[in-house]
Amino acid sequence: MIDLSATCPIPISDYPHITLAHGGGGRLTQMLIEQMFVPAFANAALETLHDGAILDVSGARLAFSTDSFVVHPIFFPGGDIGSLAVHGTVNDLAMCGARPLALSSALILEEGLPMSDLWRIVQSMQNAARAVGVPIVTGDTKVVDRGKGDGVFINTAGIGIIPAHARVAPTRAQVGDVILINGAIAEHGIAIMSVREGLEFETQLRSDSAPLHDIVARVLDVAGEHVHVLRDPTRGGVASVLNEIAAQARVGIRLNEAQIPLADAVRGACEILGFDPLYVANEGKFIAIVAREVAEQVLATLRAHPLGRDAAIIGEVVAEHPGKVYLRSRIGGLRVVDMLSGEQLPRIC
Amino acid sequence: MIDLSATCPIPISDYPHITLAHGGGGRLTQMLIEQMFVPAFANAALETLHDGAILDVSGARLAFSTDSFVVHPIFFPGGDIGSLAVHGTVNDLAMCGARPLALSSALILEEGLPMSDLWRIVQSMQNAARAVGVPIVTGDTKVVDRGKGDGVFINTAGIGIIPAHARVAPTRAQVGDVILINGAIAEHGIAIMSVREGLEFETQLRSDSAPLHDIVARVLDVAGEHVHVLRDPTRGGVASVLNEIAAQARVGIRLNEAQIPLADAVRGACEILGFDPLYVANEGKFIAIVAREVAEQVLATLRAHPLGRDAAIIGEVVAEHPGKVYLRSRIGGLRVVDMLSGEQLPRIC
Repeated sequence: MIDLSATCPIPISDYPHITLAHGGGGRLTQMLIEQMFVPAFANAALETLHDGAILDVSGARLAFSTDSFVVHPIFFPGGDIGSLAVHGTVNDLAMCGARPLALSSALILEEGLPMSDLWRIVQSMQNAARAVGVPIVTGDTKVVDRGKGDGVFINTAGIGIIPAHARVAPTRAQVGDVILINGAIAEHGIAIMSVREGLEFETQLRSDSAPLHDIVARVLDVAGEHVHVLRDPTRGGVASVLNEIAAQARVGIRLNEAQIPLADAVRGACEILGFDPLYVANEGKFIAIVAREVAEQVLATLRAHPLGRDAAIIGEVVAEHPGKVYLRSRIGGLRVVDMLSGEQLPRIC
Repeated sequence: MIDLSATCPIPISDYPHITLAHGGGGRLTQMLIEQMFVPAFANAALETLHDGAILDVSGARLAFSTDSFVVHPIFFPGGDIGSLAVHGTVNDLAMCGARPLALSSALILEEGLPMSDLWRIVQSMQNAARAVGVPIVTGDTKVVDRGKGDGVFINTAGIGIIPAHARVAPTRAQVGDVILINGAIAEHGIAIMSVREGLEFETQLRSDSAPLHDIVARVLDVAGEHVHVLRDPTRGGVASVLNEIAAQARVGIRLNEAQIPLADAVRGACEILGFDPLYVANEGKFIAIVAREVAEQVLATLRAHPLGRDAAIIGEVVAEHPGKVYLRSRIGGLRVVDMLSGEQLPRIC
């Protein structure tokens, strides 16, 4: 057997093993993707580092995306691993500007999973898919021995059709663009962490898990190719995806803390748990980076939609500090918002 | 919380938990698929119970398939989980008659996985995909805590284009059709089991893991829509897939044991391990059910291909015993070849 480790693009002496942080959506996840996967699987579609790939099929532009879900616990306030798996892939397609056409569902079950749990999850997937109007057309089921899995892991892949007027890509962020979000941040991650930590709050904190295809379609209908970038801030939160976009588009990003929607209960829970909400996962939110001239119209469109009532303009794309994200704090100071270097919330999705 | 268990289509009193047999490709796997997943996710594409779904996209017929790989061990003679994950989904697409267009790759890594193992697997995926000529265009990486996974699980989904002259479906098996296979059976399963059991044989038993897109394309080129059914006998082996086809097409299937290619070393290992080779997984073989008038031509086409040198006609579709598979044994007796009722080989793919 040939020893391949000498050719490994990740220095094995520094990183001899996979750690939870490699899956956390921060710097180590990025290192794996950019240094190992992208060069190995080199091709143009992969290199765009989009939430999905875009392919030409007999004149149509097809979006293709995959996501595995390992969230723990599998049932949580506001959803479960089944609905999350449907919403997650629908949203990845939506972030390519695509309308979802079909999903696949691949389950890895652990021996001993209660049949009633499986049934509950399957029904939840069905309900979520039906609400979106996307069929689950193909699937796979594997079972691993007890102690070699964790109840259930779900992979969903999806394909969607990108309408002609959509032209979104992380590299299209331009100086002068306006950055919007469709509502309050950090709700999914905090809902999961409160369950895990057994915290009780006066108001129950619920995941924001929701399908974004429809609200995105409306934004594209009103603003077309003036919508430059769409991205859902899941693992790693708003901070991580904006850092990725700043790096890919070689632009600076400036956020206004006072404008970023955040529920009081979530802010309180973040303080108790010691998390910065900018780094906490969302599952029903998206960032839209749009040309300045359509920003108000996009904001109005977002606010007219049930999933965008608390939408806000949260920042802008600037020429200064390319590749970096800065936040103007409530008290007026300017601080850098860096990529997360380690692990914040494992198994959040 | 509503108790959903009363509505569960699988009787929970009989099957309170998921067992390894639910993933074995036999009767319990079928029960999950047919009684739970298909009714829940009800749609026409899913109900064909193909290896993949077939979708119309602006005039083109697209095949879409997903497969998770949980094989243990992750490295084995003749391949590893990476090459297997590429070949598996390429083959599922090929079984729809499709030429592969793009793959996704979603990894679930266990904390503690050696970085060098990950690199070896990524390179193996890359090499396998390059040999097929299919790009890996999108991906996902999750990490689960130590003891909640098993090194690495891989999901690959794939999309492919079905050429106009291909029209394969399990229900197209017709009385009079001829059943062919492209070579010797049971090699993948036995290779995995020998490693697991620490068995040493004179000849090393290697997995037959290989991509079947090219040999299938050649068969379709010569026989077009006279190719009625294509199916790769992975989990559950030749016996299980033929039972599925017999049930779906409501036809009888008659096999000739003496015609079924089987290497002596594999036969010997099956005897030692107590397995019937008809139920052992293959990863580089496919069953073609074709109109009688093209059978010899298809056989010649298979034999002219490096992956079909030992191809053979192994049986026929008959009007008798619809839904059942019978085997004429070497000594002339006729026995039923049933679905596997329990677990034979866990985590073979």
